Amino acid sequence: MKRARRLSLIGIGPIGASIIKLAHNRKYQWIGAVDIDPQKRGKDLGQVAGLKRKLGVQVESSLERVLQQKPDLVIHSTVSSLEKAYPQIMECVHAGVDVISTTEELAYPYQRHNELAKRLDQQAKKNNVTVLGTGVNPGFLMDLLPLTLTGPCWEVRHLLVERRIDADLRRGPFQHKIGAGLSVVEFNQTISVGGGHVGLLESLYMVAAGLGITIDHIEESIEPMIAAAPFNGRLIAVDKGKVLGLRQSAQGYSNGHEIISLSFAAFLGLENPADRIVLDGEPTIEMVIPGGIPGDPATAAMAVNSIANVLAASAGLVTMKDLPVPRAMGSWADTEVGPYEI
Amino acid sequence: MKRARRLSLIGIGPIGASIIKLAHNRKYQWIGAVDIDPQKRGKDLGQVAGLKRKLGVQVESSLERVLQQKPDLVIHSTVSSLEKAYPQIMECVHAGVDVISTTEELAYPYQRHNELAKRLDQQAKKNNVTVLGTGVNPGFLMDLLPLTLTGPCWEVRHLLVERRIDADLRRGPFQHKIGAGLSVVEFNQTISVGGGHVGLLESLYMVAAGLGITIDHIEESIEPMIAAAPFNGRLIAVDKGKVLGLRQSAQGYSNGHEIISLSFAAFLGLENPADRIVLDGEPTIEMVIPGGIPGDPATAAMAVNSIANVLAASAGLVTMKDLPVPRAMGSWADTEVGPYEI
Repeated sequence: MKRARRLSLIGIGPIGASIIKLAHNRKYQWIGAVDIDPQKRGKDLGQVAGLKRKLGVQVESSLERVLQQKPDLVIHSTVSSLEKAYPQIMECVHAGVDVISTTEELAYPYQRHNELAKRLDQQAKKNNVTVLGTGVNPGFLMDLLPLTLTGPCWEVRHLLVERRIDADLRRGPFQHKIGAGLSVVEFNQTISVGGGHVGLLESLYMVAAGLGITIDHIEESIEPMIAAAPFNGRLIAVDKGKVLGLRQSAQGYSNGHEIISLSFAAFLGLENPADRIVLDGEPTIEMVIPGGIPGDPATAAMAVNSIANVLAASAGLVTMKDLPVPRAMGSWADTEVGPYEI
Repeated sequence: MKRARRLSLIGIGPIGASIIKLAHNRKYQWIGAVDIDPQKRGKDLGQVAGLKRKLGVQVESSLERVLQQKPDLVIHSTVSSLEKAYPQIMECVHAGVDVISTTEELAYPYQRHNELAKRLDQQAKKNNVTVLGTGVNPGFLMDLLPLTLTGPCWEVRHLLVERRIDADLRRGPFQHKIGAGLSVVEFNQTISVGGGHVGLLESLYMVAAGLGITIDHIEESIEPMIAAAPFNGRLIAVDKGKVLGLRQSAQGYSNGHEIISLSFAAFLGLENPADRIVLDGEPTIEMVIPGGIPGDPATAAMAVNSIANVLAASAGLVTMKDLPVPRAMGSWADTEVGPYEI
């Protein structure tokens, strides 16, 4: 019998906690974890993640000590910004450990952070490790899934990907991220300048690269969805004229034609939430997932379900389009399945 | 500039002809082709495929001569049965040439033809070539696509995959394959015993293997869809009481529970054709492609769109779950796009 793969975790936020549970369910062995929150330090990993049992692993403050234990793979779940995540990921690479990260900007970093991407790839190859950025979005819904749908196609003329989320069903930090409850002025001062969903550009460029298209021009927009009437939400109430959430979009152009359009809408009370792909081509394919796929737990699943692929992959920086599809492998196993939290 | 990859083709039926066109559009170079039909021999490949131009390649009767030209990859499109296709594929393997085949039973051959699969894998590794079976079904709709949808899942309790085809929109040979126009007695004597759609078991076992499930029991069914009233089709008319087409299904059980159910319905006048996946799990995901994805041209696309992945893959027998997703790469290129035939 093969020994269980040994994992360590960087960052125990809500997604990190989900990752602990799911990987434990999947029979991976946690051997270390690090977090900047002093309140988590010294506590047992099972306790911090809300598991019923202790895992016999204490949360550390030092990444160096965690890496000295030589885990088979590190899952990294701290920030969206690759610039901020870069030193943490590079420390793992230099320690010779494979990395799966939920940092959104790592999902396809060659455009926004080409220099960092090149250095990561170079160092990963030099240290014979694999580095992957993944998540449900970016990493699946707006990039891997539409690319998968092009497999049976002769031609793709245009790709539209829509994600429509009823934010009222999501947890507080998500509602905060999309500006729910803010005034329009506050929204414009905070969310419009670097807030909201991170990943549209990463998805757009992954799709373009996957299809061999050169994008010569992009357009991006972000705007508040304003309450036309008072809205009484599950977690917060929003007055008329205040912000319910947002609409974001990114369009990619090649030779003057729009060829990729990504549309992300998330606000309180959004009706008919869904994930939807319209591929205009030969053949034209419309795909709908009514209700859509919930976010945070799905990102945890993408990270854990990618472990086998990353351990088997060649060295270097890779993206979801470079690996076999991740699968809910072993989900039938006799495990203590944790609660699935939206 | 890299030289174009050089391809050869075994079998120029309707799918083979589509493969010639699409690969030509994608700037691959055809250097050889073989077919058993004496009427095709000596003719130009472009002419046989219905292209507007000649390709300067004559259809051969000898596979040996085609392989002596050392193509980079052979696309094989002759029969559904792996036993029949095996000698042809093995000849390519021994010649040291990568193979992509549309032979349905090769899509996941480890169950129905475990011995042949083992020998193919062994010889492929020995000769440093990759062998892949692919197509739209099996190879995509009922295996790769549902596996892809498990990526964001914590748990999968049950997978239902439905393919519903209005056979009236399909070409004659397809209508023939599903028994359209036969009497019930004729259907039972021909289609019920080895006719109909080939690939349900291959898809079922690929999904099971992809999810790490051991299937201990399967059930299969095939039954005619009988006309309750006369049906006047696009190509044929069917009297009341005669066969419009069929329904086929396969269910896989593990530990006494049904966990995978594949349902294939194809008959004249079927309403609301669609491809549909219902994944009961955490989360539960329903995915619908209204209208469904047309068959034969999509199989040609899967074969051509897999070329880059197969050329880059490790040696051995592989299936769609082992490779990155195929993509309609280069479909924006400045090419003469052939007609997309249903």
